[in-house]
Amino acid sequence: MKLDELFALLRRRGVLWPSAEIYGGIQGLYDYGPLGTALKRRLEDAWSAWFLGLSDDYHLIDPAEIVPESVVRASGHLENFTDPEVTCESCHTAFRADTVLAKVRPEGVDGLSAAQIGEIVRDRGLRCPSCGSLTLSVPRPFNMMLATELGVLGRERGYLRPETAQGSYLAFARMWDVGRRALPLGIAVIGKAYRNEIAPRQVLYRLRAFTQAELQIFFAPDRFPVPFDPVRAERLPIVRADRRGPEGVPPELVAASDLVDGGLPEFYVFHMVQLLRFLRDVLAFPADRIRFYEKSKEERAFYNRLQFDAEVRLESWGGYTEVGAVHYRGDYDLTRHGEGAGRDLAVTPTGQPKVLPHVLELTFGIDRLLWALADVHLVRDAERTVWQLPPYLAPAPVGVFPLIPKAHGDYARTLADTLARDGVPVTFDDAGTIGKRYARMDEAGTPFCLTIDGSTIDPGPEHDTVTLRERDSKAQHRIARGELSARIAPALRPPRPARA
Amino acid sequence: MKLDELFALLRRRGVLWPSAEIYGGIQGLYDYGPLGTALKRRLEDAWSAWFLGLSDDYHLIDPAEIVPESVVRASGHLENFTDPEVTCESCHTAFRADTVLAKVRPEGVDGLSAAQIGEIVRDRGLRCPSCGSLTLSVPRPFNMMLATELGVLGRERGYLRPETAQGSYLAFARMWDVGRRALPLGIAVIGKAYRNEIAPRQVLYRLRAFTQAELQIFFAPDRFPVPFDPVRAERLPIVRADRRGPEGVPPELVAASDLVDGGLPEFYVFHMVQLLRFLRDVLAFPADRIRFYEKSKEERAFYNRLQFDAEVRLESWGGYTEVGAVHYRGDYDLTRHGEGAGRDLAVTPTGQPKVLPHVLELTFGIDRLLWALADVHLVRDAERTVWQLPPYLAPAPVGVFPLIPKAHGDYARTLADTLARDGVPVTFDDAGTIGKRYARMDEAGTPFCLTIDGSTIDPGPEHDTVTLRERDSKAQHRIARGELSARIAPALRPPRPARA
Repeated sequence: MKLDELFALLRRRGVLWPSAEIYGGIQGLYDYGPLGTALKRRLEDAWSAWFLGLSDDYHLIDPAEIVPESVVRASGHLENFTDPEVTCESCHTAFRADTVLAKVRPEGVDGLSAAQIGEIVRDRGLRCPSCGSLTLSVPRPFNMMLATELGVLGRERGYLRPETAQGSYLAFARMWDVGRRALPLGIAVIGKAYRNEIAPRQVLYRLRAFTQAELQIFFAPDRFPVPFDPVRAERLPIVRADRRGPEGVPPELVAASDLVDGGLPEFYVFHMVQLLRFLRDVLAFPADRIRFYEKSKEERAFYNRLQFDAEVRLESWGGYTEVGAVHYRGDYDLTRHGEGAGRDLAVTPTGQPKVLPHVLELTFGIDRLLWALADVHLVRDAERTVWQLPPYLAPAPVGVFPLIPKAHGDYARTLADTLARDGVPVTFDDAGTIGKRYARMDEAGTPFCLTIDGSTIDPGPEHDTVTLRERDSKAQHRIARGELSARIAPALRPPRPARA
Repeated sequence: MKLDELFALLRRRGVLWPSAEIYGGIQGLYDYGPLGTALKRRLEDAWSAWFLGLSDDYHLIDPAEIVPESVVRASGHLENFTDPEVTCESCHTAFRADTVLAKVRPEGVDGLSAAQIGEIVRDRGLRCPSCGSLTLSVPRPFNMMLATELGVLGRERGYLRPETAQGSYLAFARMWDVGRRALPLGIAVIGKAYRNEIAPRQVLYRLRAFTQAELQIFFAPDRFPVPFDPVRAERLPIVRADRRGPEGVPPELVAASDLVDGGLPEFYVFHMVQLLRFLRDVLAFPADRIRFYEKSKEERAFYNRLQFDAEVRLESWGGYTEVGAVHYRGDYDLTRHGEGAGRDLAVTPTGQPKVLPHVLELTFGIDRLLWALADVHLVRDAERTVWQLPPYLAPAPVGVFPLIPKAHGDYARTLADTLARDGVPVTFDDAGTIGKRYARMDEAGTPFCLTIDGSTIDPGPEHDTVTLRERDSKAQHRIARGELSARIAPALRPPRPARA
């Protein structure tokens, strides 16, 4: 579906809508409704099961969203977390420089200095996209952090964290003391991050408040053993920075072992494979819509030694979109925070030399992944609209319907309560024809609908059986009530990675 | 335990610690570590199972944390969300007025105007609590919201929401359109709220960023049917506003039916019972530590027609602490937002007259509840420290230990993976003596520890059985491996309310 069509459907079904909608909304902020909230939760659970399942020593923490200025000074965000911005001196509209340059430089402005952008604006005679005047300002760096004043006298300046990663770096020393004092140590955060986007756009694509799921793996350089053998034959869809073709050219499929032979570290490629499997095998994105897009030295942050973005091709956003990335950040973070805090953050693992750990970061945008789950899996044909989510991602995985509410309602209610107590999330629906109820659940992505009818209640061969209707095939089976939990519950648990 | 002792233990175990700790911390902000994050999640799940379990039409949503100024103007927060604040003109320290008045007015300053507080400061000759000077300023109202500037030109002022409730009010119109168009309709939010506390203190007691779990129930006045009969005999521990004794006097135990006979609406008392049961039966707080403390007309917000705070008596905080409340807010919220947004928020339920819904709010502070779970259930005796959490709240519910890692490690690893795939969260630990491993898990509140030993692996009568050790009784049983999930999984599911 196109962007507008998909957003209209998600809004109508209560998946998400513009925040403060009755006040006309607020740019770059959205609310998740009941289905969106449940889907987001399941997506986060699937992420945790997969990535925290990689090691006993990968842990989820929940640090505060507000950080003091000293932290963002040390991390470099105060100085460098900027987007070039251009203001029209006639109509006073502000633009991201890449918007102003969109027509003459569709590949974006990564790697260009403000002065270079200014030259292009001047030389090409670019006009204000809003009023058409030739009065665009010289580009200036605009810091994208949201600030707030803490304390009565406003003397403490706090920042809404620009990325959840900082919370993991700040927690490293405490986590080391609390834990097994061994490397690699993984510290994950799932939570909100904030950016004062110059031009929020495309619904969940460029948000001012968004949810990240990030895993920071701290390790001793040259000492990050991974079970590489089981993944060496996996073929990854790769676009190398120095071998990019035009946008339509499909990525190269390269075996993991060949990437290592080409110079990438085993630990890096191993985690690229985990990303691929998460996107393809857990979120069920088709393999031919996924690619790893290498960022060149000019494009990536200077502290990133390696960066491949994981991208998914979406119809609604008209091309490939970054949904995650693998960053090899070296010792940048612990060095900077060690200096900032005046504390040596090196550690001495039992039986090994003292070391300042390096960081491998796996980062994901949860909102973009959620949008991608709608773009890819929400399928509309002549007959119906079906959200073909894997069952463990379905926000409302089980529907319970009394065929005739008066006659079958009590039985259905008791069944719903029993399933709920068994830990199966249930949606009880007794309104409208059974066809309408199926249609509502198809749109919500419900894989299992259970209908209670006369045969369920009356004595006879089908007594205490219910009709289980499968979403994708529309196949119906009579199942004994006592077997329902065993049949349904396993399908609702997200996959975990194989452990070596 | 005393406050300092309890906090030291929670910090050492990685439950929580001051945020940005390596930078010296930041007042009023804390990070949750692995155990704290998991405990908070389980507490939120237990809250959802209980309160959303009350009706098919109570839904969880996830609205943005930043709201535009128009919203907090309409809600009254811009004008009224203030604390009286006093600054010392010598040392420039700022104080909450209740701190300055603590010795002469231990009951607090609720209901006093700034002028009245100023009179007390002057008449009693109160000195600065910090430097001792007689130079305290005239009290002024201090707005406790945290603000931020959005957009390049900073022309949009946003506020970090002071309570999650506003998100539910803003969503009401959309939720009505999306849903069954019937009342009562419940809209719940679990998420962060922010207050620029003048004097953050007592660890999780007065935070600048905290998690609320709030359920807003929209209903037609005089038409909120509840199944009152099953709860009428429940006795509630009550302190009425007009019958307060000295602090040590225990609350009156009053039957739900007597509260209704005394003038409280059935729907209100029914939900007080649900709060009581949540605190007593789900969180397992002893009944004699719980009370409902009525707020008088002067003490409560002017729009609250009824307010009973749910309080728990905690050793670490030295008395009763508010952990939740039941607010009957009338039609204040939809009236104000209707005016603010220029939109009629009245609805017409099928077959009923048009109505502007009233709101019953059930509100909880998740951080305070988490602290209370530590205060009440973390028990230290001569022999050991045990966190006696109900199993469904335990952050690490199951430990898996190979007695001798080399001999029993593979079996234990496979067992751990199998349980994890069955949806049982597992902590694998092969470090140190088995006694030390039990002790670590006792502190973490783990109800079930599974030990694999020679008998598990060797042929014989105990082949494929493991030792299950229970946390509280320390009793040990041999259990067949195949029976473990069935034995453990049901204990990990939080209770749900009985449905009428």
